[in-house]
Amino acid sequence: MSVEPNSQDRAIKRITSPGNTQVKAIRALHQKKHRESEGRFLAEGLRILAEAIDQGHAIETLVVLPEMRDHRVGARLVAHTLDNGGSVLEVSEPVLAKIARKDNPQGAVGVLPQRWERLETVDATGDRCWAVLEGIRDPGNLGTILRTLDAVGGAGAILLDQCCDPYSIEGVRASMGSLFCQRLVHTDFQTFQAWRARQGGMLVGTSLKATRDYQQVTYPRPTFVFMGNEQSGLPAEYEAGCDELVLIPMRGRADSLNVSIAASVMLYEVLNQDRRRSGGQE
Amino acid sequence: MSVEPNSQDRAIKRITSPGNTQVKAIRALHQKKHRESEGRFLAEGLRILAEAIDQGHAIETLVVLPEMRDHRVGARLVAHTLDNGGSVLEVSEPVLAKIARKDNPQGAVGVLPQRWERLETVDATGDRCWAVLEGIRDPGNLGTILRTLDAVGGAGAILLDQCCDPYSIEGVRASMGSLFCQRLVHTDFQTFQAWRARQGGMLVGTSLKATRDYQQVTYPRPTFVFMGNEQSGLPAEYEAGCDELVLIPMRGRADSLNVSIAASVMLYEVLNQDRRRSGGQE
Repeated sequence: MSVEPNSQDRAIKRITSPGNTQVKAIRALHQKKHRESEGRFLAEGLRILAEAIDQGHAIETLVVLPEMRDHRVGARLVAHTLDNGGSVLEVSEPVLAKIARKDNPQGAVGVLPQRWERLETVDATGDRCWAVLEGIRDPGNLGTILRTLDAVGGAGAILLDQCCDPYSIEGVRASMGSLFCQRLVHTDFQTFQAWRARQGGMLVGTSLKATRDYQQVTYPRPTFVFMGNEQSGLPAEYEAGCDELVLIPMRGRADSLNVSIAASVMLYEVLNQDRRRSGGQE
Repeated sequence: MSVEPNSQDRAIKRITSPGNTQVKAIRALHQKKHRESEGRFLAEGLRILAEAIDQGHAIETLVVLPEMRDHRVGARLVAHTLDNGGSVLEVSEPVLAKIARKDNPQGAVGVLPQRWERLETVDATGDRCWAVLEGIRDPGNLGTILRTLDAVGGAGAILLDQCCDPYSIEGVRASMGSLFCQRLVHTDFQTFQAWRARQGGMLVGTSLKATRDYQQVTYPRPTFVFMGNEQSGLPAEYEAGCDELVLIPMRGRADSLNVSIAASVMLYEVLNQDRRRSGGQE
């Protein structure tokens, strides 16, 4: 019996050298400036890549270990990439580790186009909540906030000023794929406030200086949960632009919470109030 | 005017070589096996070290940059260490970076003795809450849970089985010093359950299989919030040992939360119920 290479085999390129030009171009996407100029980013791992295609994202270049083609999810990713005009690179584990910049990479890395929305085209009325993020430094925190936002049925995140990049590989990883179903906008505070005047709802920030308990406020739709930098919180002028400043109570020695924890406390309060209003039928 | 070296100057050792034996011994504490055999650990940064001494911990060896002795907190750390019989090493930034294993180390690294309590000697009756942690892999998550636990006025964490080490430098960093005011116990599930039978209270786990909403349960003192591994959650036999299994609602695509986020949602519910019971006077 002669075995004929199938069409997939012909379409898949094998790369063995970590010095390969295409490998280098992919690795450059670890740097923010390259992600920005290319408008692309890296996502690692079968689970996260499967989430991407389930959410209607197409993988432009899929880099996989040979054995992944026999894996149920791996085979699906390969087929989906080729069907959508993308390319598949088969590489050895050392090359994949080099691309993923970590030991024991999770079988596959994909290159995908970034998706940013223009604030002017966003209609947030009726949405349960959005996160508005200013000066977040740690992509793990940003990714974790997106994951929690997804969990509470949030709509997306509006990044102001110098927020870190949600499309860094650490951010994508921490989001566990929630990045693919949350809307992302980058703008400045002034533009955001002008837009928000037309959306209604409430902009609520947390502050150690606030006197109102976070559970004493009724959160409408849409609620914009405003979180600031890990060390310094929200700048005073941004606090002044909030409809409400609330305090998350703290009872121990700790005088602050991790920003992704503070965001989750707020976001779950918004969800819980919404659940109570709708008798759990939301 | 002649300047005489003060007693501090005489007590402070200057080290310039990263190959120095003492530097090597300190660096070995990045490894869990050395931390365990030595019963010591590393904490980095003025803020965290100040928290340590404020909480009654003594720094055995303080490694500082020369300029830190002119810094208000740095000077306090140096004086406290010497007053308590510890030693101070003055090093260059490259040596400190080597010890901290990161670029731009935060001015100081301390070596401190670990503090573990024996479960038999712990009386938890009357405590608001404890975290019980099984199989947590990421020290950042563990440290963040300790920080949140501190914030809600929790008493401490009971680590079961193969939980990662709260005394890793990443864990200490993520705890932001809350590690120094939370009680820590390491035991196995059977011993924990036998002890708990004498403490009363409730052991509550979160589970995707649970049908009871986490807000439908009344949490007594002490509530033991039981969290499992990042990927797999709690093992079935541990779930079976819980008094309550509850569900944290999720409304989006995400089918799980980061473990430190799930812990915070539970811990804030415990605090909030306690606040309501006491009319905010707890």
